[in-house]
Formats: sequence, C-alpha cells, structure tokens
Amino acid sequence: MGHTSPALDDQTLSLIDRYWRAANYLSVGQIYLLDNPLLREPLAAEHIKPRLLGHWGTTPGLNFLYAHLNRIIKQQDVNMLYICGPGHGGPGMVANTYLEGTYSEIYPDISEDADGIRKLFRQFSFPGGIPSHAAPETPGSIHEGGELGYSLVHAYGAVFDNPDLIAACVIGDGEAETGPLAASWHSNKFINPARDGAVLPILHLNGYKIANPTLLARCSDEDLAQLFKGYGYAPIFVEGHEPVAMHQQTAAALDQAMEQIRQIQHEARHGSPEQTVPHWPLIIFRSPKGWTGPKEVDGKKTEGFWRAHQVPVANCRDNASHRQLLEQWMRSYQPDDLFDEQGRLKEELRQLAPQGEKRMGATPFANGGLLRRALKVPAIQDYAVEIDERGRTQAQSTAIFGEYLRDIFRLNEQEQNFRIFGPDETASNRLGSVFEATDRVWMEEIKSYDEQLAKDGRVMEVLSEHLCQGWLEGYLLTGRHGLFSCYEAFIHIVDSMFNQHAKWLKVTRTLPWRKPVSSLNYLLSSHVWRQDHNGYSHQDPGFVDVVVNKKADVVRVYLPPDANTLLWVGDHCLKTYDRINVIIAGKQPEPQWLSMDEAIAHCEAGMSVWPWAGNEESASEPDIVMACAGDVPTMETLAAVELLRQNLPSLRIRVVNVVDLMALQSPDQHPHGRSDADFDRLFTRDKPVIFAYHGYPHLIHRLIYKRTNHSQFHVHGFLEEGTTTTPFDMTVLNEMDRYHLAIAAIEQVPELAASAGGVVQLFRDKLEEHYHYVREHGEDLPDVQNWTWQAVTR
Amino acid sequence: MGHTSPALDDQTLSLIDRYWRAANYLSVGQIYLLDNPLLREPLAAEHIKPRLLGHWGTTPGLNFLYAHLNRIIKQQDVNMLYICGPGHGGPGMVANTYLEGTYSEIYPDISEDADGIRKLFRQFSFPGGIPSHAAPETPGSIHEGGELGYSLVHAYGAVFDNPDLIAACVIGDGEAETGPLAASWHSNKFINPARDGAVLPILHLNGYKIANPTLLARCSDEDLAQLFKGYGYAPIFVEGHEPVAMHQQTAAALDQAMEQIRQIQHEARHGSPEQTVPHWPLIIFRSPKGWTGPKEVDGKKTEGFWRAHQVPVANCRDNASHRQLLEQWMRSYQPDDLFDEQGRLKEELRQLAPQGEKRMGATPFANGGLLRRALKVPAIQDYAVEIDERGRTQAQSTAIFGEYLRDIFRLNEQEQNFRIFGPDETASNRLGSVFEATDRVWMEEIKSYDEQLAKDGRVMEVLSEHLCQGWLEGYLLTGRHGLFSCYEAFIHIVDSMFNQHAKWLKVTRTLPWRKPVSSLNYLLSSHVWRQDHNGYSHQDPGFVDVVVNKKADVVRVYLPPDANTLLWVGDHCLKTYDRINVIIAGKQPEPQWLSMDEAIAHCEAGMSVWPWAGNEESASEPDIVMACAGDVPTMETLAAVELLRQNLPSLRIRVVNVVDLMALQSPDQHPHGRSDADFDRLFTRDKPVIFAYHGYPHLIHRLIYKRTNHSQFHVHGFLEEGTTTTPFDMTVLNEMDRYHLAIAAIEQVPELAASAGGVVQLFRDKLEEHYHYVREHGEDLPDVQNWTWQAVTR
Repeated sequence: MGHTSPALDDQTLSLIDRYWRAANYLSVGQIYLLDNPLLREPLAAEHIKPRLLGHWGTTPGLNFLYAHLNRIIKQQDVNMLYICGPGHGGPGMVANTYLEGTYSEIYPDISEDADGIRKLFRQFSFPGGIPSHAAPETPGSIHEGGELGYSLVHAYGAVFDNPDLIAACVIGDGEAETGPLAASWHSNKFINPARDGAVLPILHLNGYKIANPTLLARCSDEDLAQLFKGYGYAPIFVEGHEPVAMHQQTAAALDQAMEQIRQIQHEARHGSPEQTVPHWPLIIFRSPKGWTGPKEVDGKKTEGFWRAHQVPVANCRDNASHRQLLEQWMRSYQPDDLFDEQGRLKEELRQLAPQGEKRMGATPFANGGLLRRALKVPAIQDYAVEIDERGRTQAQSTAIFGEYLRDIFRLNEQEQNFRIFGPDETASNRLGSVFEATDRVWMEEIKSYDEQLAKDGRVMEVLSEHLCQGWLEGYLLTGRHGLFSCYEAFIHIVDSMFNQHAKWLKVTRTLPWRKPVSSLNYLLSSHVWRQDHNGYSHQDPGFVDVVVNKKADVVRVYLPPDANTLLWVGDHCLKTYDRINVIIAGKQPEPQWLSMDEAIAHCEAGMSVWPWAGNEESASEPDIVMACAGDVPTMETLAAVELLRQNLPSLRIRVVNVVDLMALQSPDQHPHGRSDADFDRLFTRDKPVIFAYHGYPHLIHRLIYKRTNHSQFHVHGFLEEGTTTTPFDMTVLNEMDRYHLAIAAIEQVPELAASAGGVVQLFRDKLEEHYHYVREHGEDLPDVQNWTWQAVTR
Repeated sequence: MGHTSPALDDQTLSLIDRYWRAANYLSVGQIYLLDNPLLREPLAAEHIKPRLLGHWGTTPGLNFLYAHLNRIIKQQDVNMLYICGPGHGGPGMVANTYLEGTYSEIYPDISEDADGIRKLFRQFSFPGGIPSHAAPETPGSIHEGGELGYSLVHAYGAVFDNPDLIAACVIGDGEAETGPLAASWHSNKFINPARDGAVLPILHLNGYKIANPTLLARCSDEDLAQLFKGYGYAPIFVEGHEPVAMHQQTAAALDQAMEQIRQIQHEARHGSPEQTVPHWPLIIFRSPKGWTGPKEVDGKKTEGFWRAHQVPVANCRDNASHRQLLEQWMRSYQPDDLFDEQGRLKEELRQLAPQGEKRMGATPFANGGLLRRALKVPAIQDYAVEIDERGRTQAQSTAIFGEYLRDIFRLNEQEQNFRIFGPDETASNRLGSVFEATDRVWMEEIKSYDEQLAKDGRVMEVLSEHLCQGWLEGYLLTGRHGLFSCYEAFIHIVDSMFNQHAKWLKVTRTLPWRKPVSSLNYLLSSHVWRQDHNGYSHQDPGFVDVVVNKKADVVRVYLPPDANTLLWVGDHCLKTYDRINVIIAGKQPEPQWLSMDEAIAHCEAGMSVWPWAGNEESASEPDIVMACAGDVPTMETLAAVELLRQNLPSLRIRVVNVVDLMALQSPDQHPHGRSDADFDRLFTRDKPVIFAYHGYPHLIHRLIYKRTNHSQFHVHGFLEEGTTTTPFDMTVLNEMDRYHLAIAAIEQVPELAASAGGVVQLFRDKLEEHYHYVREHGEDLPDVQNWTWQAVTR
C-alpha cells in the first residue's frame, strides 16, 4: 500500500479496538438482551428477549469502519456522511450513534448510563420500539437499506453541490449483485470535483448473503481490481480477520483514500483540472461475516459463514448452553473495560468520537431539512399562455413549463440547489428551454459538435431510471430541490424505489427532530396516449395505481389538462415538502382551455365544473355529467360534448374536469379529498357520469367507491390496447375517443336511449369511417386532425 | 486480433456487403415509403408516409451483425438466436427475416416480390400494421427491447440447459447504462459450459442515446477492456466506419469468438473442465449511429451523432429537398443491384442466408412453444397434510410445497427443463426440501464447508430480482418451465419487467404461429404480515395491484390459505401456459383448514363458503358474511368468527374464503370471474360483508364494484402501517386482527349495534390488554400465541 511505517501507533490502535468492541457489544446486546445490560450479573433466561430478531452478520464490519471513519473526521475535520448499504445492520448504526452521544441527545430517555443501555437494548425490534434497520428513526441515516441496491446512488445524490461533504458508503456484497448498484458505480462520471463533494465507496466483502456465497467475494482480487478500474476507480484492498492487522490496513487505506480525494479536489479547484474523469479511490474491504461472533454454534461453522447472517445463536432463553455461548461471546468484548461504573462509555473512548455536527449521527447533511432553503421561483403568470380562443389556441404544455424551469435555474444560480434528473428525455419531453440556462452534466470527453454538455451542467441524464431516482432522493434528503422527468411507462422501473421513499417520508413526518425535506416531484410525459414512435411497450399509465397505495399524507397525483394548469401544478409541487407529487402532462401541441386566472381557481379546487363547456340550465341538474382527467381525455371529452350539443341540443350536459386526482377521494381517505356535499354538487347524486380518465379505469372506481353516486360512474380509460398507431386511433382502440364517449352518454340517459338511435348510428358510422380511413391513409381523419373546440363559449 | 490473412475473401465480402445494403434499404423503406418500393420511378411526395415513425440510428449496425452472423451459422451449422437489445431497431429485424424468407412464410401476404416489399414498407408503424419494435409479431424475436435493460438476461435465460444454442445478444450502449443490464454481465458466472449453451454478447457502441452521448462509448478502450475482463469476459474490439475494413474485422472477431466458445465447451464436455469460471468472449463493436445514412441534414451533423436516432430526414412529403436527400440515400444502396426484376432478392444473395430452422427468424428457440414439453408433476395427494383437527393441525405451507417441487426436479431429471429462481430466498422461503434433489448453481470456487452448491445445480439464486425475472423469462420463452420464489415486497422491483412480459403474452396469444409457452409463476412468501426480522421496508403487498391492470386473459392471482390449497394452486399454475400466475403464501407454521379433497373443490370454485366455520341456518340468509383472502386474514377471520360465536351465539355468520382473487370480478371482466348469481349467493345481495384481505383494501372494492352488494363490503387489509413487531401486533396496527374484525361485524348488524355494546367493549379491552402486554413482554398474548380453532366443527 506504499506505507512503510504503521498508520496507527499502539495506543491509538488499542483505543480504536476498544471503541469497536464497545459498538459490537452494544450491537449484540440489542439483538439479545432485555435486561442485565452490562452483564454485571450472570446471564439468566429472563434477561433474554423472547423473540430474537435482527442481523448480526454485517454489523461488526460496519462498526469497524465507523470507528475508523471517526478517526479520519477528527484528524481532518471533515463533514462525513455514513451511508449504510446493509441497512439491516441497524444495531451497529444505533450503537455508534449512541456511543458518540447523538442518540441520547435526540432521545433523552435513552440516557448514557446503564439504564439507558438497558432501554437501548430493549427497544430494538421490540413492539413500540425501533425497527431493526437503519431507519428514519436512526440518527445520521438517509438510507434505510432494507431494499438493497440504492446505497451508492444515494451517496452520490448527497454529494452533488456539496463540495465539502464526503459520503462514506458501505456497500454489502449482497447488495452489489443488484442491478441498480451495478449501474451506480458509473455515477463517478457525473461528479465534478470542482463543485461536488466526494463519495468514498467501501465494498464490504463479507462473503455471504442469507444462505449463499456472494458473487464478488468469490472473484479473484485480480478480477475485482480490473472490474473497478474499468468502472473508473482506484481500488485499495483491505483483507483479513486478525484485528490488529486489520486496524493498520484500514487506517492506511483510509489515509490513502482521503489523500487521493484531496488531491483530485485540489487540482480541480485550484490547479488545472484533469481532462478525463478522475479515478476516485474505492476500498475493497474483505472481513469475515459475523466477525468476532461465535466461531461455531452446535458444531456448525458460524463466523465467516452465512449462518452468522441473522441471529447466530438461537433460543438462548430455553437452551442453557446457547445462553452460555452468548454470555461468553458478549463478555469477550470486556464490557467493564469499555463502560464505567455508571454504564457510561469510558472517557478515553469518548474522546475518539468527533464533536457536535461532525459526528456522523449528528451531521445536518443527514437531516437535510435543517439545511434546506426555499427554492426561489418565478411568478407563473409570466409564462401564462394567452387563451385567445378557448380550445383553439394550441400549445405544448411541457414546453411552456420548460421556460418556467429555465428561470428556476437562473434564480437559484447562486444557491446551486436545484437539478433536473431524467433518462435522456429532457429534450424529448420538450423541456429544452432549460438548456438556455444550463447544460447536461458531462465529465467525459466533450466533442466539438456536442450540444448542451458541460462539466457544470445542472441537468442529469443517464439511461437509468434507478440512477435518476436515487440521485434525486439523495439530493433531496440532504436539503435540496429537484424534478424527475420521465417517460410515463418507464417510471414503473422505480416503483419499488418510490415505495421505499414514500415509506421513509411517512415515518419522518412523525419524527419532530427530522425537519421537512423538499418533495420528490415526478413529471411524467411521453405518456400512454402519445407514444407514436414506440407503441405498446411504452404505453403504461399504471404508476399512479402504485402511488395511491401509499399514505395519503405523502402522495399527490395531478393531471393538468393544459399549459396554464401545468404551470400552477408544477409551481405548487416545487414549493411543497415531505411529499411525492406525480404530474402527468402532455408534450404534444394540444388545445388550451383555461386562462391563468381560471387555471389557478380550478387547480386550487382540485376539480370543478367547466361552465363554458356544458349547457346545463343554472336552476336544475344536468341530464348527464361528462367528466375528465388528463390532457387527452379532456380533449376527447370536450369533442364528445361538442358532438352531443350539436346533435342533441336538448341534452343538458355538465363538464367536470379533475386536475387533482386525490380530490375524488373522501376527505377521511385523503387530505385533498373534497367533501361528500361538494362531490354530490359536482357529480350529482344520481345522474350518470361518463368519466374519461387518463389511466386504467378501475382506479376511478377505487377512489370514489364511498361516494353517493358511485354506481353511476362509467369510466373510460386505457384498456391495455396499444401499438404504434395514430393518436386518435389509440383512443378508439381503448374506447376513450369522442364517439365512444358520446355514445356512452346517450346510452346512459334513458330518455334518449330510444330516441337518439339515429345519432348513435351517426357516431358508429364515424368510427367505421375512421377505421378504414386510418388504415388506408395512415393518419387520422381530417376533421379529427383539425378539430378545435367550436361549441358556444360562455 | 492474431489473424494474419483477411477473414473474408473479396467475393464473400462483396456479397455480405450487398446483403447488408439490402437490409439497410428495406429498413429505410419501412420508415419512409408507402409506395414505389424499389424506386423504379422518381420518388414523389405521395410515395412518402404521412407520419414518419421509427428508429434508424441503431438499425444499420443491427443489420451488419445479422449478415455476419448468417455467415457463421452457415459455415458452422449452429443454432443461433439473435437477441436484439435495441428493440426499436425493429425495421432491421423485419428486413432481415424478410430477406431470409422467414417473414413471407409466416405472413404469406408479404410476398417475396415488389408488391410484397410495398406491403412490408407500408405496414410498418402503420395503423393496422406492425409495431415499430422487435415485437412478438417479429419472427425470431423473444425480446421486445422497448424497455431497455433486459436483452442480456434474456439471452442467458435462453441458453440455460440448451447446450447447442448460441444466443448472439446485441446490447446498445444506451441500454448498457441501465441497472439490470449492468448486473446481467455477471450471468456468465451461472453458465455451466458442460450443459448450457453460450451467450455471445456484442456491445454495440454507436455513441449516442436520444440526445446525448453514452457513458460507455466515451470510455477509453483501456477502461472498457478492464471493465469487461473484470466482469469475467475476454473482450474483442471492432471499431470503424469504413465498410470493407469493418467487414474484415467483424468476420475475424466472430471467428475468434466462436473458436473460444467451442474451446470452452469442448474442455468442459470432453476434457478437464476449468476450475474457475471461464472467460467467455465478448465483442465490443464501435460503429457510427445511423451508419450509411445522411452525413448532414440541413447542415447539421447526422450520421455518427444523436440526430440519427429516429427519423433523420423529416417531413419528406412537403420538403422537396428533404425528399431528394432521402432518395439519394436510398439509391446509395443500389436497389437494382440487390433485387431482381420481380423485386426478389437476387439469387447469389439468397444463398447467404442459412436454411430452414437455422435461419434466426425461423429458429424454434425463438418460438419456444414448439419445443415445450409438458412438465411431469407428481400427484398432489402424495403431499397432502392430514387435517386431524381442523384449524389445530399446524404446518408451513411453503415447506410442504417444497417437497412437491423437489419431486418435480426428480421427475424431470432427464428433460432438464425446470429451474427455480430466487434472490437467495429459496431456503428462507422454506422451500429447502428441493435441495434433497438438486443444488444451487455455483460456478465459482466451492469451499469445503459450503452447502448445496454445485455446477449442475438447478436452483438459481442471485441477489437481483431483475436477473431472476429475466432469466426465467428467457427460459420460458425458449420452451421450458420455472418458478420465481421471492419476498413479497421486493417483487415490486420487477413491476416493469412483469408489465413487459404481460404485454408480450397478450400479443403472442393473438398470433397463431406463436405456440404457447409455460406460464411465469411467482411464489411470493415472507409476506407483509410476517416480516418479523425486517419491518416496514419489507412490508408491501401492492404487486397484485400492478398485476390486475394487465389483460385478464394473462393474469391470475391466488391466495391459498393453507398447505393443501397451496399444493393445488401451485400444481395448477405449473400446468398452465401463456399466463402469469401470482401465488402468495405463508412460510410460517399456521393452522391448516382443508383436507385435500376439500382444498381441491374449494380451489376449483375459486371461492366458496366454509360451512363448518359459520353457523348460519341452512334455510335463510346469514346476518353477516365474514370473508377472507390470504393465510393471515383467514386465520384472523376465523378467530373473529369464533369470538362472535362464543359471545353472540344468535348471530348467524357465513364464512367465505377466496383463493382465486379473480373470481371476485365479473365474468365480463375476467375469465375466472364468477357469475353475478353465484356472487350474490355467496355474498348475499344486501347483508354486510366484513372482508379481511391480505393486501391494500382498495383492491377488493375495485374488483367488486360491479356486484350487487358492493356497497356493503367493508374491507380490512394493509393500511401501510408497518414495523418490526409481533405478528399479531402487525394485524392490530392495520385493524385486520380478530378483535377489529369482530367489532366491525357487530357494528354492521343494526340489530346488534345497540345490544352488543358489552361485547364490543370486551373486544376493545382485549385490544388494550394486547397493547400493553406486547409492549411489556415483547411477544403476543398467550391466548393469541396459542390460539387454535375451537368452534364447533361440522
């Protein structure tokens, strides 16, 4: 490793070793003990928890690294974040934040004495206590680690625009087998050392998953070195099990890594930056699974094997020999050498932890709300589309919104706290105006003919929804703002990451010490109805169905029908916190419906009648309600209304547009839910409602099943009929086009069903005409292509 | 490359080049032309499609490789599959399968003459025609490629147990940025060259995505070589744009790769197999995006840049100079040199394609139903749990099912056509009995103390749900059988892969030439109610909500409440085809309810009354229906029923269990939907129904909203309240426990609501007692822990 003298003197080594033992002791205690926390009496059955839960295997390695990172922080006075990839090593994270004093500051009940340790042990994985993972409840954590794969991408997200932060990221060798993690290594190609902080990845090869070796642990060092050099890192190997040697190797490796980081940053910030992507250091740390735990249990190999994964010695309440093994194991850490009479960590060990906010449990970077500053946003009125002729003015909603986003970049130029993330779709989704203010981040070679690439760009594009999502999560959780722009269908790729982030937010909202972070905002475009180039694989509006399963406090879904409503929605979402906002909006030229003032009123209400579109008498209820949510459904609904008004002028129609999908739910189901009285006023108590919805029709039924009039709702939406065809043909294939909607309306009004047969036939004839025309000409009927709203406007 | 003389003689090179030009010509024609297919008259506006759709950029590279692989197939008489990662290069796949004759055999209307070419062009991305991607409609394809990331994992899945198959897999450099693809490279560690075929990955670096360079294309050859050597490959570089040189390089690279594959396989099959994982060849192919297309359009760089991604020359109908550019471009391929007077590919070029089933468009490996043989399964009765005492006998459902699976391995030993896939969870999900018959596949070093690892194992474990899913898809699509066993929460990781496979199956079901393939079966265990070790991040039952969005013909969801029902369901699913079956079952010891005969009758019905559980009079309707779906909901429902029967003996209760969730839907919504009359008979037309459901309650409302009695359904399920706590406390947190269910029942029976106040209070007191007990003792109340069904059994 290039070091000739040991990195640590004997005394420091001994202190770090004792600190590590203290963390290990507290970790084992959490898994096993109800009482007798410092083993000041012989271990008895009643001291053992009735249910032994948790994961030991990864924990000693996590503890080892935590102690060594503490040394670096103290020595070099750096801001460091500890991202714990194996989040199920929660006992270790809790133990360390307790040892450094953070835990008791946040949770004073868990005091720094024997009684505090007893409570610390008891609460772990205990009803009413704390979860077994590095959860939101764990100080210093921005990463749960239960669903594996996202530690490294979170670490990178955290250091963007945080030049003085180093994210030490421990990646388990199980996690390293996942796809998202395998792609995350390439995040180094997006780090600009002049303005971003650094990630120090520590690949922890402890050899085993639940019941299997890991792929990477059984690779040769030669293959591993090549793999990570190829990824663009400079790997440093640490390997062994003998503590003294491991302490020396680890200290030397960290010294070396920190030196390399400093050098890369110094050159980029003060010297002549490299023209190529720098090779950042990476530590490959091979240590035994369940290190320092029992070597064998019941004659079976345990330390250094997968049997150490969870609770290595089971049933310690009833099995005296197991209990004895546990006691030996715990006493091997020599608790009396670590904790004083009162049960407080001995003073010489306390000195090893950093102070104040430098402690990894107390760093504000892991409680980003503390650092968050409100985003400066321009007035949406400045971007408003003038509606010269309602329904005839055309605009591309996302293009207009792109101008607004461009100016957010400009307004927050100094703060450097906003980024847009997307899988190579910023331009495709028509947000191209942002490139007037910034570029895409690009650290590899830039050719003379490249466009909109720069090392200091603020648009992050990589063809991995996982990386976009994970970077944004890390960026938000450390106190910044952002937007994820994505093709609608492929946001399903991160369903599970969405779930985990929603769960995280749900819990943090209950923790007063966790300050609010900016909402995670999705802008989904290139949606199901307009995938002209790609067809069926790109047609899937089901993400919303995943979203609405999560806690109502956390999720919002918006379907702005035009540019002005999108401006309001986008602006609103960027100002919110601790939420996940999903915005679905079109990118194609489309009719514009509402002036900015109307858009504001409509969006604030969540849903409302569009009085100019219908023809009901003010005094009485309409014969039918035509409702819509989404840009294409809105256009088809208004076209259907126009057809009905032209052909059946006596039919009294109300048009309701829904922009905030959650307004459909009852107020006891969602905070945005409109009251039953309001709902009845909008949708009537008994009139048929023809509802054109952007996604799978079932969702509307699911949202409204508690409403009075729910059984009269007839929802049209995506029926999973897709291909590459014309935009209008897509709506016909799914029976959400104007003719099907108009026919459905007629069929639901009993008085009409008999008399309007001619009109129905007219509409069926049009569908037939369409069928043949589109298959002959390859484009939609001229009257559909050129359709604009003609009905009387009030 | 080690070759001293050119790989191709001049004549062969010239023929291959012409073949490539023919494919390019047909590809461009598909994107642009309505008529004048062979340019036998000057190109006029009316010959151009009104909407220009499709992707040119990747296509010439795909065509180039196809032509060269044809040479290898003919020369070496191998079975080869072409996996087209950039599936949006569909025009190329269509063109090549047309040139080799397959297309016209399958679709005789697209004949091998000028009129056939005209139709071939016209149908592409045209209403009523074919999609723009390598879709199910495309001969030779098992991979759509619209959602990027899965080409390589599909290729590996295809070659497992197919020793004579080589899957040539073209991976785009956009796709290579995705997580699933980045992990897929490690699939080489699961290939046993003695029994499996080979994958020949061809990483196609054409430099750009939609509007961006790609990360890997801008890496140095040195970094790339290290990366892929580290992954365990032997990379061979091909780079350039000058056709003659590229033909020679490519031919030499393929010769070399094939030689290496043969050598690895020969040693493994006939010599002494290597002890380490062999380094399989990999071709890194750098060629310009939009190769041979226009260099510039409107003065802007196009060939070799991202502007070539989709339709490089737009608006050729109205813009005469664009039309001229298009005509020059198409004529540069010299169509008259390629097609004869009739428009048929010239004879000397036809000779280049392989014959019969060796053609990549005609290989039965890409139409796996042709190769599929029914799985041999044992009689489920042999594994039946004897129900000595109904509801008191305990068993672990998945452990019983594991015995059945073990014997499937044994019965199909010779066929070698069944595998189980899972992310290190086979044992954790209690399927460990399978290891009596087989092992996990492990090609890296096996240590003396390792267990259940072998090179010829048939259980595939890797900590990547993406790989498990993708391998299984590839395995099924090539005619074999399998099962994916997964933690319930983390199956969301592959939501999007599920979507794509469901879409694939939906389309293949409409193509008579595509023969049925085995269903994709999920066994989800370690479910939301029993995540004792892990807590909230591991608690998510929402996958089903994604599943039910897909076409009813394709999807099934089963919730067997005990071991015998799981046996029936699992056995049934393994016998089905062209479906996706989701089975959710518990792994913990649980009460057993039905004898095998009862289980069979119950499962065949999908849902039925459990008469022994309720106490209704046969002549009249019950006061209330207690319904349940899922193992834990069933147990809590029966416990609630027992409480009600003990405390309110006059209350007439019916118990309905639902094992096939789709039975709840109307028959017009799902083929398994029970008739309205049946539904009314089961659930009554107007009595309250307390429904305990395994997942998010909304789903039940969504499934039954068309049923008569839907407004009387009160569904209890997972309310997104999770943590590490006791199993019973989990049900209490979500109000799905026996006491909440019993209280809900009482509150819904108007006659009781007043009189049963004392009983309600009793139940509330028990909840209070539970609350304190569990927080004090860390385990459930003894009467809950020890509960078994005591009510009178009829």
